[in-house]
Parts: sequence; structure tokens; C-alpha cells
Amino acid sequence: MSDDQRFGLARHVILKGPLKLDGGGVLAPVEIAYETYGTLNADTSNAILICHALTGDHHVASAHPRTGKPGWWTRMVGAGRPIDPARHFVICANVLGSCMGSSGPATIRTETGAPYAMSFPVITLRDMVRAQAMLLDHLGVATLEAAVGGSMGGMQVLEWAASFPDRVRAAVVIASAARHSAQNIAFHEVGRQAIMADPNWRGGDYYGRGDPPSAGLAVARMAAHITYLSEAGLHDKFGRKLQDRGEKGFGFDADFQVESYLRHQGISFVDRFDANSYLYITRAMDYFDLAEEHGGLLANAFKGTRTRFCLVSFDTDWLYPTGESRAIVHALNAAGAAASFVELSSPFGHDAFLLDVPQLFGVVDGFIRAGAR
Amino acid sequence: MSDDQRFGLARHVILKGPLKLDGGGVLAPVEIAYETYGTLNADTSNAILICHALTGDHHVASAHPRTGKPGWWTRMVGAGRPIDPARHFVICANVLGSCMGSSGPATIRTETGAPYAMSFPVITLRDMVRAQAMLLDHLGVATLEAAVGGSMGGMQVLEWAASFPDRVRAAVVIASAARHSAQNIAFHEVGRQAIMADPNWRGGDYYGRGDPPSAGLAVARMAAHITYLSEAGLHDKFGRKLQDRGEKGFGFDADFQVESYLRHQGISFVDRFDANSYLYITRAMDYFDLAEEHGGLLANAFKGTRTRFCLVSFDTDWLYPTGESRAIVHALNAAGAAASFVELSSPFGHDAFLLDVPQLFGVVDGFIRAGAR
Repeated sequence: MSDDQRFGLARHVILKGPLKLDGGGVLAPVEIAYETYGTLNADTSNAILICHALTGDHHVASAHPRTGKPGWWTRMVGAGRPIDPARHFVICANVLGSCMGSSGPATIRTETGAPYAMSFPVITLRDMVRAQAMLLDHLGVATLEAAVGGSMGGMQVLEWAASFPDRVRAAVVIASAARHSAQNIAFHEVGRQAIMADPNWRGGDYYGRGDPPSAGLAVARMAAHITYLSEAGLHDKFGRKLQDRGEKGFGFDADFQVESYLRHQGISFVDRFDANSYLYITRAMDYFDLAEEHGGLLANAFKGTRTRFCLVSFDTDWLYPTGESRAIVHALNAAGAAASFVELSSPFGHDAFLLDVPQLFGVVDGFIRAGAR
Repeated sequence: MSDDQRFGLARHVILKGPLKLDGGGVLAPVEIAYETYGTLNADTSNAILICHALTGDHHVASAHPRTGKPGWWTRMVGAGRPIDPARHFVICANVLGSCMGSSGPATIRTETGAPYAMSFPVITLRDMVRAQAMLLDHLGVATLEAAVGGSMGGMQVLEWAASFPDRVRAAVVIASAARHSAQNIAFHEVGRQAIMADPNWRGGDYYGRGDPPSAGLAVARMAAHITYLSEAGLHDKFGRKLQDRGEKGFGFDADFQVESYLRHQGISFVDRFDANSYLYITRAMDYFDLAEEHGGLLANAFKGTRTRFCLVSFDTDWLYPTGESRAIVHALNAAGAAASFVELSSPFGHDAFLLDVPQLFGVVDGFIRAGAR
């Protein structure tokens, strides 16, 4: 362990910046909430960056300060796990635009003393990754042993490999895609419209009023949550089972368990997430198109790369189906990159990357060990 | 043509009832808006009932009075079409619970002189079909040459065959299912929550105020609309193309064509549909489970039936995928019923039943002609 205040749980740093943004503006300062686990070795060769998904945070393997729940990826990160603080120096940072301590719409703007709200600049996944690179500079990490992430985390990993090829020796991209499809954008747009239709949204200026657009955000979460699960998974878990009643109620209460479950997902989400952050991060995801950033050809994003890639998809994931991973592998092959790819079978749909799919951990463990120096 | 005022376009009848409802109550009177095309022949053997989908209406082959658009199924019903008023007496009625003239939440309640709103009874698809049977009695039609419908229309056709087997000689069930899945229910619940989260909903008492819950209804429609299209169809039609701009706007306007399209779908829907009707009809669909109505075994619904069945599914329909039709066919086979089944290829997803899929019309035409007396 180190006395260095840069390392440990629940860290927060204010970097001077400025961070140049894809949208044309700059962000300064750049606040980043993050955690580190384990010890950076002498030649700084054992650092692994974990990139989190849309509504995730930096508490990858520590209890969430608001909900008290365990870290969101304790199956992947921890003692005896594929990413083990006994061997690795693990870094996880809250993404730009989020609401868990990194700069986002709820952040107080230095110039005004008030939250940015919708004056926060629209950011991209590449901007998120640039902020993470600034954090690595701050931490004294020049090169990552690996960057690892699922879903939007996987997109950041791809962006890392494309933007900073010399700083990532290995990239693990799980249940992800190199661009947001029309259907992906459509679902996000429904969520954004649900938030912006809530009168409590007030153009984003709801901070400090005690009445955030919870109803709209809950609807957004409900719609998104359906896309995280498989049809078969929903059927197995809920089917048409009724909730705490023997017969249909012939009303509009939650008759079915699946309704009750969805409502709970929506309601509990608003306690831990900020509606404006939801707008900004979904926008960043919709803007993501790695090929477009590289002249329209995805292989160009990986030209000359020496990064090793590991792609994992899940057969029941219809949000980022296997074809999306396959397209990335084709581009990697075209670029002559070292790439391994496996489609795993799971009943859990997109959420599989967060759940108990033992093969996933075997794949990631083997891949990371194979590159150990 | 007939001078009989019961026949023709834009008909409206108030039947005395009472209609006994699955929920336990009764509805009286029962208002039904409907249209007929063609002439009922002397032995009343040429009647075909068209059952419409969730947001459909009785204007199957005539212009919509509010939007001015052509009938919603002019590819199926009309001169030279599989269902031809030159040969068939075509009936299409607005379903119970809807908002185009049949009894629903917006209907004025005789006892109070005010709209039912949420005091309208929660109804089922079987209730809708019972109301249609009352209409057929009124029209002097004992037996249908065929009942034909897609999506929720197909569910009504199944319910017709199960509830009134002696009144339906042939049943055409397109892009449909014998029960609503957990995922189906989940999407509907998102829509209902979006409506009920809109402060203008006011517990359903918004009639006559001039400010219906349009924002919530639009979000509901947007979410549902995604389920009507295939991922591939959305990709082909919109991909990641930008809307009227050369570059991303780095804001929250509709940058992508798919966003603009969805917003338009939401906004235009609220001009033609009532939010409370959306609640009631989605509820009826979620309650639909033909097996459950028959002791848990779908084959029981068709025991001893002499009705001929034609099932059609579409390969890109993920709302009611082919497996749902196949389950119905298995039950029909188990019941010894005459059943034909085809999965058609189409890029249009669930909406295919309304669109230009020439094979569909060939299948329906052949099936109906094969049963002609």
C-alpha cells in the first residue's frame, strides 16, 4: 500500500486542463472521481483500466456510497478474479458527463458558481477517453497492461486503442460495438424525450429545487432496461406470472411481475442517477462511430496497432448483438491486429457481462495472463 | 348497394347490451363505429370481418376522417385485392376501448353525462370480440366466411375462433401471438408509465381541458414504434444518417434522421389517438392469453373446431416472432384443426403486415378462395 494520496478508494482530482473537446470547446478544470486498487509496480507495467458503462461508476469493486451495494464488477475485479489487485494496479474512473464526481452537468461551474446544467458541453466517448488519459498522466501511468470494459465501457476501450495505441498493450471489449446503430439511437432518443417531456426537467435547470424529473428519468430507465435483457430471460424470470395476487386486477396497478420489476428498476434508478447526465452520456454513445472518426473505414482505426484485442459477445444480446463484435474483428483482421473473439452463450441478454457467466472470466483471465510480462 | 342504413361507410350504432365483461362488470349501452363494404349475399355467406390492431380503426379501406390518409389496409381490401367488395361483404369495427367512435374511456357515460375516463371498465380482447359478435347480430350475419387480422387483429381472430367456433369458417392470423410475452408486457408498461407520468394525464380526467397528456403519449408511441420495425429495416432506412445537416450539432436537437422520424411518429400520433384508450387497449393485449382462458392448454381453445386457419409470420418481426405463430400451429395440429402456416421474408419487421409484401396477399387470396362456397 502507498501513502500517496493519488491512490486508493473514493479519490477525486481536479485537473487543470484544458481538455479540448470533439465538439469544439474546451473543458477546464476537469474533475475526475476514480478509484485504484492494488499497487503500481516499479516499472509501471501492471496497470489495468476498467471502463464503465452508461450508468456505471468508479466503484468497480467497492461499495456504492449511496446504495451500499457491492461494486458493480466484483466478479471481474478482486482477489482470485481475472483482474486481481494482488497482481494488478486497477484504475476505474467515473466518465466525463456522469454524476458520481467527475465533471458533468451537475458540476458547479467555476465561472458562475452554479451547476453547468445544459451549458455543459456535449461530449463524446473520445472526450471521455482523453480525460482518462489525463488521469493516467496524473497517476504516473504511461502504458496500460490492459483496458477492459463492457457495453459503453467496451466502446471506450476501442477508443483507447484507436486514440492512444501506444498506451494500451491489450484491449478487452465485451458486449459492445464500434458504432451505435439506428435502433440503439432510437431507444436512447425515447429515453431523452421521456426526460425532456417531464415538466420538472425545466430545460435542465432543476438542481437544488428538490423536484428533479424523476418520472421522466424512470420511464427512460424502464425503456432502456428492456434492451438489457433477453426475451427468453424475461420469459424465464417472469413469464406472465402475476405479482402478489391470484387473479388479474382489471386495473392499472402492476398486475404482472414484469411490470412490478420494471417499475422498481425505474424508481430505484432515479435515486442514484442524474437526468441531465443521462442525456449527455446517451448522446455521447449515439455519436460514437469509430469508423466515421477514421475516414469511414473501421480498419483504419487500428492501422499498425500492436495492441492485442479480445472480443466477447453474448448470443442473447440484442442491444449489441454478436454481429457488431464480428464487424470489429473483421476490421482488426484487415488491420493485421492480434485479435481473439468468442461468442458466449448466456440467457441474460446484454446484461450478461455483469452477471455470472463463468466462461467470461475464464476468457478474460487467460487473455490477460497471456500478455503478462 | 343497399338503402339499409346499417350498411356503408362511417356507420355508428348504439346497441342496448348489456355486454358482460371478463372483468365482472357489464357495459351498456355498447357503441360501435364500423364500416361495411360490398353487399351481403342472399344466404349471408360472404361476410368477412377485418379486425384492426392496437391503434387502428374501422376505416380499413376508406379515408381517415382526421388525417385524410387512405384506409390502413387498402393493399388487402379493395377492388382486385384478396378481400374484394365485389365478392365479399366486408365488415370492420372500431374495437371496444378505442377512440374512433366505439365505447371507450372518452365516451360520454349515460348516467353522468361526462366521459367515462378511468371509470371505463378494463376490458379484454374477448370482450372486444363479444362486442363484434353483437354487431354481427345487428347486421344479420350469423357466420363469417372469414375473420382476418394482423397483430392485435390476429389475436381477435384467434379469440373469435375460440369463442364462436361455429360463426367463423376461416381464420387468418397475421404477425400475431396467442399470448403477450413478458417482453411485450414490458414495452406496453413503459408506454403506460410514460402517459401516467405526464401531469396532464390528471388520473385520466383531461377531457375537455384542451391539454391532453400529449408528451407522455408521444413517448409511449415512440417506444412502441421501435418494436414495430426491424433493426435491419431501421439500418437500411436511416442508418446513422444526419437530419438536414452536414455535421453533428453537439446539442440535443434531432441530429439523426432516426430521431427526427421517431419524434414525428410520436407527435403525429397524439393528433389521432386518445391516451386513455392507449392505456385500456394495451392492458387488454397484455391480459391476452388464449391458453390461460382454456385451462392452460392452447390446444383446448381449438378443440373440435371446424374452422380453417391460416397463419402468417414475418422473419424480421421481433415483437411477435415466428415462434409465436408456430406455437399456435402446434396447438391447432394437436386439436386436429386444418391449419396452414408460412413465414414470409420481409425487411419491415412487425409492420410488414401493413406494408407491401406481395406474398402476403397471394397467401391470403389463395386461402380465402380455397374456402369459397
